[in-house]
Amino acid sequence: MDHRFFPSTYYYTFGPHETALRLKPGDRLVTDTVDARGYDCEGNSIPESMRQQSEDTEYYRANPLVGPFYIEDALLGDTLIVKILKIELNRDYAWSKNNSNFGSLTEEGPGKRLLLNQPMEEQYFRWILRPGQNSAVLELKKSRLRRIEIPLHPFLGSIGVAPRYGRVETSLSPGEYGGNMDCVESKEGTTVYLPIFVKGGYLAFGDVHAAQGDGELSGTALETSAEVTLEVDVIKGKAIEWPRFEDKENIMVAGSSRPLMEAYKIAHVEMISWLVSDYSFDREEALQVLTQVGKCRVGNVVDPKYTVVAKFPKKYLP
Amino acid sequence: MDHRFFPSTYYYTFGPHETALRLKPGDRLVTDTVDARGYDCEGNSIPESMRQQSEDTEYYRANPLVGPFYIEDALLGDTLIVKILKIELNRDYAWSKNNSNFGSLTEEGPGKRLLLNQPMEEQYFRWILRPGQNSAVLELKKSRLRRIEIPLHPFLGSIGVAPRYGRVETSLSPGEYGGNMDCVESKEGTTVYLPIFVKGGYLAFGDVHAAQGDGELSGTALETSAEVTLEVDVIKGKAIEWPRFEDKENIMVAGSSRPLMEAYKIAHVEMISWLVSDYSFDREEALQVLTQVGKCRVGNVVDPKYTVVAKFPKKYLP
Amino acid sequence: MDHRFFPSTYYYTFGPHETALRLKPGDRLVTDTVDARGYDCEGNSIPESMRQQSEDTEYYRANPLVGPFYIEDALLGDTLIVKILKIELNRDYAWSKNNSNFGSLTEEGPGKRLLLNQPMEEQYFRWILRPGQNSAVLELKKSRLRRIEIPLHPFLGSIGVAPRYGRVETSLSPGEYGGNMDCVESKEGTTVYLPIFVKGGYLAFGDVHAAQGDGELSGTALETSAEVTLEVDVIKGKAIEWPRFEDKENIMVAGSSRPLMEAYKIAHVEMISWLVSDYSFDREEALQVLTQVGKCRVGNVVDPKYTVVAKFPKKYLP
Amino acid sequence: MDHRFFPSTYYYTFGPHETALRLKPGDRLVTDTVDARGYDCEGNSIPESMRQQSEDTEYYRANPLVGPFYIEDALLGDTLIVKILKIELNRDYAWSKNNSNFGSLTEEGPGKRLLLNQPMEEQYFRWILRPGQNSAVLELKKSRLRRIEIPLHPFLGSIGVAPRYGRVETSLSPGEYGGNMDCVESKEGTTVYLPIFVKGGYLAFGDVHAAQGDGELSGTALETSAEVTLEVDVIKGKAIEWPRFEDKENIMVAGSSRPLMEAYKIAHVEMISWLVSDYSFDREEALQVLTQVGKCRVGNVVDPKYTVVAKFPKKYLP
Repeated sequence: MDHRFFPSTYYYTFGPHETALRLKPGDRLVTDTVDARGYDCEGNSIPESMRQQSEDTEYYRANPLVGPFYIEDALLGDTLIVKILKIELNRDYAWSKNNSNFGSLTEEGPGKRLLLNQPMEEQYFRWILRPGQNSAVLELKKSRLRRIEIPLHPFLGSIGVAPRYGRVETSLSPGEYGGNMDCVESKEGTTVYLPIFVKGGYLAFGDVHAAQGDGELSGTALETSAEVTLEVDVIKGKAIEWPRFEDKENIMVAGSSRPLMEAYKIAHVEMISWLVSDYSFDREEALQVLTQVGKCRVGNVVDPKYTVVAKFPKKYLP
Repeated sequence: MDHRFFPSTYYYTFGPHETALRLKPGDRLVTDTVDARGYDCEGNSIPESMRQQSEDTEYYRANPLVGPFYIEDALLGDTLIVKILKIELNRDYAWSKNNSNFGSLTEEGPGKRLLLNQPMEEQYFRWILRPGQNSAVLELKKSRLRRIEIPLHPFLGSIGVAPRYGRVETSLSPGEYGGNMDCVESKEGTTVYLPIFVKGGYLAFGDVHAAQGDGELSGTALETSAEVTLEVDVIKGKAIEWPRFEDKENIMVAGSSRPLMEAYKIAHVEMISWLVSDYSFDREEALQVLTQVGKCRVGNVVDPKYTVVAKFPKKYLP
Repeated sequence: MDHRFFPSTYYYTFGPHETALRLKPGDRLVTDTVDARGYDCEGNSIPESMRQQSEDTEYYRANPLVGPFYIEDALLGDTLIVKILKIELNRDYAWSKNNSNFGSLTEEGPGKRLLLNQPMEEQYFRWILRPGQNSAVLELKKSRLRRIEIPLHPFLGSIGVAPRYGRVETSLSPGEYGGNMDCVESKEGTTVYLPIFVKGGYLAFGDVHAAQGDGELSGTALETSAEVTLEVDVIKGKAIEWPRFEDKENIMVAGSSRPLMEAYKIAHVEMISWLVSDYSFDREEALQVLTQVGKCRVGNVVDPKYTVVAKFPKKYLP
Repeated sequence: MDHRFFPSTYYYTFGPHETALRLKPGDRLVTDTVDARGYDCEGNSIPESMRQQSEDTEYYRANPLVGPFYIEDALLGDTLIVKILKIELNRDYAWSKNNSNFGSLTEEGPGKRLLLNQPMEEQYFRWILRPGQNSAVLELKKSRLRRIEIPLHPFLGSIGVAPRYGRVETSLSPGEYGGNMDCVESKEGTTVYLPIFVKGGYLAFGDVHAAQGDGELSGTALETSAEVTLEVDVIKGKAIEWPRFEDKENIMVAGSSRPLMEAYKIAHVEMISWLVSDYSFDREEALQVLTQVGKCRVGNVVDPKYTVVAKFPKKYLP
């Protein structure tokens, strides 16, 4: 069944919130995402009334999420399949910025720890998007290079389910439930596997980036809006510990933690588990082969948890 | 007003859950805590019906919490004061253990990352508690030292409020909301200051330890039950970023994060803020003085976030 | 001038040792390296008399190095250029292994910290090298995949100069002087730039790997011997802080430190410096552009310092 | 035998340099140290000719060291005993400073990684030392507290031997050889145990601090000069992995590494080894007891490696 969904509330947390829409395994969903500050395809801010809010507390107002979508038949211990069929940019610009105290080189910790050093000056950048030419353009004002044109590779910065153990997490943080992984791998054509930690799963997503380098160095990519088409399914009785991706070339695991090295370990240990359970590798031989052919990408090093993607080329699968 | 509270539900998460009891500023509360696995003062397990549960998900079943207590007049941006008037151990033993894959020397990450190394053998220890003599005794079976007797210094392993930004966190994790800090500082006689992130605060606590070394090396202290007496109050219009402690000798900040160094930084930056805002220190001079007289204790290095306590001796306050 | 050099001593440390050969800027050098345990192209161990030794101490006997080569005219504050013209594998096998307590998933720290967990069983693997077909083959004994064949991409695991500040470092450690970076980027066709910290530079290298995945997960790649052809040159009066690489597609910086996140920061801060000093980028615009187009590879996460390579595509240089 | 030694060269590196003096086991040594920038008891800078130098390279000019002292009969695999008999401050002031890009809250990495944030303003502080009253006084100019007086507790910021594996290290870095641990434990009355990695040991020391808080937050303590009296001895055939301290109350291990958590692990694993080998503890029982009675102090978090001291109270030794 196909659904065209128009959000009425954007959430700032991943959790078992009031269901936006119920989806059955096999259903397709088309919907619109807004950018990381809540601006839509026309550059208008979504109204306050459509943002998650409470009289009792405040939310971290980054990455408004579409959803949550309740997946029927999805039980704790199952795996959710999300095929990203299309990410269609629907705006002619993306914004980005250098942050004063956020990002990997300007040091604000996850708990708002500020260094004693003076913050860097914040600076906004407006990238022109040309989906027709598949490129983004930025005019540089102070560099010898006056203008840079780069290819687009849009992806979902955030996609996740309700976290494990009854937790609720902000839309800024990635984790074992997916979330704000900021990984270029969650692009058109990729299948995302997410663990089901709460009955119904409570899928939510948003924060499309038109392009981004490894690690999202400054803390902000090419932030924009898009029309997204997904197809959901469920693998019954199969539990995974961390988000997995699959595209034509690789099977992949996204581990998120701090310090960065933990994310690396998580991703690789889960990859070895995957090779053993699904592809009949011996554990020690999986370690040896992964050591020699594994690829690894630094997803983000700016969010409250950092994300590392371990990749195993499908050509070496039996 | 004095309240003698008997819990009917023990929670495994910190968050704005159904209120157990409403407290007014100035109220006193006497209640019982159970140990980290839910055993009470008679060594009986609390029944399933009294544990937080859901048909839709599972909880991490460590550190059942008493509460949450809704504090009237406590609004976002206020500070909650909790005076720990008494922690009376009410059981004649505490258990502890060496864990297979938990603790600082056997390495399981917060996301259940197992190393490829073989786990250590799990081992339980039963410490005899003698509150009359203020001591705990353990018989050693394989060491030349046959028996060790140590002084008791009971404290609340967990005390916290509902987290910032609408988050809900497990009772295993510490954070900016307090939580499972496992810090010996939250003992009888200490005043704990906690930030209010949600109207009403939602104070919860538990996990009394009869004694513990710095860092909680193996991941488990002398786990036991107690009768706890607290007094609550609210500082209106004063916001703090992280939990603070105060006793006769020191003012203290508990920073929790990973990696460990982040927790150190958080605690010290918040201490400098405190010295500047409440004690009229110049920021640079506060840094210099804290560098020379600051004490620092490693609270825990085993929970999903590590906790470091920065201390400033009150004798150097103006 | 061309030199065919036959080593008489293999060093286990980077430092200003007795010069093996003096090279002039522009000179070419052809020499043989032995594998990480000191086995040569015929599978013979180099004799004890040819290994660095002392009656007074012991050396960490991994990665025997060829050199050191004294580069004439190279002064403190200059930059050494090393063009890797050829790495010709000269043996029909490479060995690798899963380590008991070394590598990223079995945890032995740089100071021989052993976890309390039981070590993993050590396991050797013999890869057949077929330089003619550009492939390596491993028979798997316990996996459904019975045999894996992968392409060769030989590189120098170790290449470096005498360290900064009069230090001497083991051949196991990378640093600001290069060293055991275990980076696939130091391959045939790459130009390596190294800072000169000691007059003469004292270039040394070895530890050729026939292939390796990102991070060198288990701690050991396809270890083998090779004939290596290099050309050296000097940039007078230009100081760099960290090793740089350049190939047809990218300019690159290799930052080495612990924790891993520090290596990421070092590499990216140095890359921004490079873009500013050599390519007239404004610093803030360099940060923004690098955020969107930068690539980043995890070199090694097993050595005493971890290595991260930041990459900037040359097509975006002015 | 007693030696009154007057240094003619101050070293900036730990290593097997030209011997300053040969000592026999049992010998006593009295000598003077200069402060971290090389100022002596009269506030005069030591002349260039007395500083380690080379035409070929530059040294990191912090913490000039007295020594190295060659210890007769000390062989690789033995343990050096250094009893700190006296540290007598011999100057009426100590300097300290807040650093622009050094220290735990202003972030410059060990490889000179600068954040993009603006550095903090450097600020010097002059503390008046009153050894007679055992106090140091600082006038504060911008704080409500106008003047702070603190007790002295002088200690050797740096004490170490030639490193393992033929390495040479700067006087800024601590390690398995001791070095710039900046630990208050190396005070009068403490016995320091150091591993012998090179025949003769090559003991060197300096960088006396008149007082310091935990972690040396800003990167600089109360830097001053002193007359130091030591007694050396050797334990034949006993190898230790890391520096150990012993005073009236505790046995202690100083682990140095990065990240900070590694230093914590190193110190505690070595402490368990010590309890097992010398005090006949069972390994698992040692872990349990250390978990409950262990103290742990953060030595420094500003040097290229951080130092953590694990402590075990002697009253619990058999």
